[in-house]
Amino acid sequence: MRNLTLLTDLYQLTMGQGYFNEGKHEQRAVFDVFFRPNRLITYSVAAGMEQAAEYLENLHFSEEDISYLRSLGIFSEEYLAYLSRLRFTGDVRAVREGEIVFPYEPIFTVSAPMVEAQLAETAVLTFINHQTLIASKAAKICAAAGGGVMEFGLRRAQGADAGIYGARAAIIGGCTSTSNVYAGKLFHVPVSGTMAHSWVMNFPSELEAFRAYAECFPGNCLLLVDTYDTLRSGVPNAIKVFGELRKKGYEPIGIRLDSGDLAYLSKKARKMLDEAGFEKAIICASGDLDETLIRSLKEQGACIDTWGVGTKLITSADMPALGGVYKLAAVYENGREIPKIKLSDTTEKITNPGVKEVYRLYDGATDKAIADLIVREGETIDETKPLTIFHPVDTWKRMTIEHFRVRDLREDLFRGGKRLQAARSPQESSAYRAAEQGRFWEEYLRQDMPHIYKVDLSDALYRLKQQLVETYRGQ
Amino acid sequence: MRNLTLLTDLYQLTMGQGYFNEGKHEQRAVFDVFFRPNRLITYSVAAGMEQAAEYLENLHFSEEDISYLRSLGIFSEEYLAYLSRLRFTGDVRAVREGEIVFPYEPIFTVSAPMVEAQLAETAVLTFINHQTLIASKAAKICAAAGGGVMEFGLRRAQGADAGIYGARAAIIGGCTSTSNVYAGKLFHVPVSGTMAHSWVMNFPSELEAFRAYAECFPGNCLLLVDTYDTLRSGVPNAIKVFGELRKKGYEPIGIRLDSGDLAYLSKKARKMLDEAGFEKAIICASGDLDETLIRSLKEQGACIDTWGVGTKLITSADMPALGGVYKLAAVYENGREIPKIKLSDTTEKITNPGVKEVYRLYDGATDKAIADLIVREGETIDETKPLTIFHPVDTWKRMTIEHFRVRDLREDLFRGGKRLQAARSPQESSAYRAAEQGRFWEEYLRQDMPHIYKVDLSDALYRLKQQLVETYRGQ
Repeated sequence: MRNLTLLTDLYQLTMGQGYFNEGKHEQRAVFDVFFRPNRLITYSVAAGMEQAAEYLENLHFSEEDISYLRSLGIFSEEYLAYLSRLRFTGDVRAVREGEIVFPYEPIFTVSAPMVEAQLAETAVLTFINHQTLIASKAAKICAAAGGGVMEFGLRRAQGADAGIYGARAAIIGGCTSTSNVYAGKLFHVPVSGTMAHSWVMNFPSELEAFRAYAECFPGNCLLLVDTYDTLRSGVPNAIKVFGELRKKGYEPIGIRLDSGDLAYLSKKARKMLDEAGFEKAIICASGDLDETLIRSLKEQGACIDTWGVGTKLITSADMPALGGVYKLAAVYENGREIPKIKLSDTTEKITNPGVKEVYRLYDGATDKAIADLIVREGETIDETKPLTIFHPVDTWKRMTIEHFRVRDLREDLFRGGKRLQAARSPQESSAYRAAEQGRFWEEYLRQDMPHIYKVDLSDALYRLKQQLVETYRGQ
Repeated sequence: MRNLTLLTDLYQLTMGQGYFNEGKHEQRAVFDVFFRPNRLITYSVAAGMEQAAEYLENLHFSEEDISYLRSLGIFSEEYLAYLSRLRFTGDVRAVREGEIVFPYEPIFTVSAPMVEAQLAETAVLTFINHQTLIASKAAKICAAAGGGVMEFGLRRAQGADAGIYGARAAIIGGCTSTSNVYAGKLFHVPVSGTMAHSWVMNFPSELEAFRAYAECFPGNCLLLVDTYDTLRSGVPNAIKVFGELRKKGYEPIGIRLDSGDLAYLSKKARKMLDEAGFEKAIICASGDLDETLIRSLKEQGACIDTWGVGTKLITSADMPALGGVYKLAAVYENGREIPKIKLSDTTEKITNPGVKEVYRLYDGATDKAIADLIVREGETIDETKPLTIFHPVDTWKRMTIEHFRVRDLREDLFRGGKRLQAARSPQESSAYRAAEQGRFWEEYLRQDMPHIYKVDLSDALYRLKQQLVETYRGQ
């Protein structure tokens, strides 16, 4: 495993030197990871917590790292000695991977001595921003396809990790497999793929290329039919080879279309396959797909069973960064919490101060999610009494709910530097996501003009926020 | 170093099994990496060749890799035994990093036994697509800024490698430093960064926060002035602390603006700094910058000396994938080249067949680049005679040039599996890029409606292409 301790912004280390000089380096601080709304975010699928946890577990500067930092000529020997002994000793509360999450919710909260908490900011954000982005994009694409989506994007990923961890996030978001063999081995997730155009080009004829492949993989025969002419050559040749396979006792998997008008070609190909007696042969489509194109193809009656999605999934092409932030929520002085707030001229950009918890409220009868509630640490919600919740900005928007159940959206991931939750497989997180997605009314999850799911603040948190805003504005 | 051999698409390995069964696995094949035009690509800065070279140099399946492949249940023991001995034994000709390149040019050509060449496709594309994308975006941004651009994007990068190798590519493209400490150590490139808003929020007042920082880093004092109120609090407090520093014999570096109207604030802040006698204190700006916003700020007379550019650089936000491809150009049979072509209904998508070279022609008097010429292997260009070049599609567009010099755009990177070129530092590649950029007329490099730089085919290559198109269409 690479030691990624230095995967941080230089200013985390210069501020660390400053805190060290000021004797503030071990002051306990609480930072929240959250993201802000964006018209492309209806809901998000949390991911990357596992890599963030691995980073914290393994946090340590090697001798080589310390020598490098010394070579920069800006750090004191005392501070470097302190860094060389540094380990993560803090607490983390976080949502689990696969959780459905919304803007403003603290999805990963670090409570630790200042230097540790500050140092962790960059890498924690990198991992969570990236994987939450890709898992969420995958969830959108899989929702449009209704299943059967394979991740095919490695060659267009922003480097090796973007391919590897992007594949992992895609599985959490709902993809059934990846073409990425490295990811398949590392995460024990299914891999898929059969042939490229170069295979077909490398034989004297398409028919010979198909025959050679069928001979090699009789039980796993999926043929790429668009190299020369899909309907006049590709599909007829595939049907010929499928017939030969059947005589040998094998059923073909199907065909793949990678170019041309996928709606038209898939309908024609389906008809040809059916008429030849290959009703069970699937049609796989690939080529610049995303949720919009998939939805359009399905509306046109395209006969596509599985989807290979590349560039637009692995880069989240329409929004290639989530923009999650890591904001100071509180510090402790003599064991007492001092809530911190960041002001802004934009109301929506003012942070929620203090140490917080997040709860999800479900309707008692339908078990569907009603709203999420952010509260101050230690607040409890009494499920036996009616609860009035209100919009955090337009406070006249109120609603009283009864007969509900409450779920703590987060778990203890670290306590005193010790990791409490074992790693979960991407498939386990995907199953969790699927179950939780089922607890949302469709109106909340649809892509176009969704009903905005409520993320409200408790009375106590709302009052704290108002009070801090007043105090700072008054200065 | 991680063994990334499995960083490939499964179909490379299934096709490999097929070639192995057919006895074609050691047939020599030639593949070209190139990319197609896109309205956002005026010119590109080649990068990622170093990581592609490292991948090829280290290509080998570990025992664990072989066990994993065996566990998939689709490969023969004979093939797995062959893979376990596989090393890269081929040749590579490639442009060097920092080279200015254009669509259709073969920037990385692999000539190797089929299985090796096919296996290498995915990772080679991943590295070159990613880094060429980011180096090119950096070049655009640096051209708009006129220098002084720092790469600040790690937290929004698509995973660790996107941050690390993105920083490397950004330096090749013209950035002066990165905030990414890991990249700084790995590539020996300058790192930069001072403080975040959390530093300022962690002190009883902004003035105390600034003083503490100045005390800690008297010789490297750059203060973030927008936490509370830039002009009423941030800049006056910075000036106060700068005055105290000067009394101690230190000159301040300057201030950083990270929000608000950067044009207005920078002009006001410049005036305040100048009037206080800090004419040399710089103003650094950050916050959602890209080449368009930087150009607009400069047009408005913003007084900004250095630029911290994050999300939009590290993700190449307006075009997050380059789309480079790896296409079969030829195979050898009994030592004889059999050129290969991929047809398409779109003329621009038909590949250039055969083994090729790329030359850049420079005007003898000005030493400015005139055109690039793709030729068949073995063709020579006589600099002493007039040369007529023509557009590869609109062939009536012709031009005869005289008094020119010719440069082979590529070098031998591998010969018989042995690497011939040592790694170059990102700074060396950046200097090379800068020099070569200077050999292009501005009209070719501008972002908006540029004059399209000519990439033509030699007579011989054009004839080969026409002949192959006719042959296939005739079938």
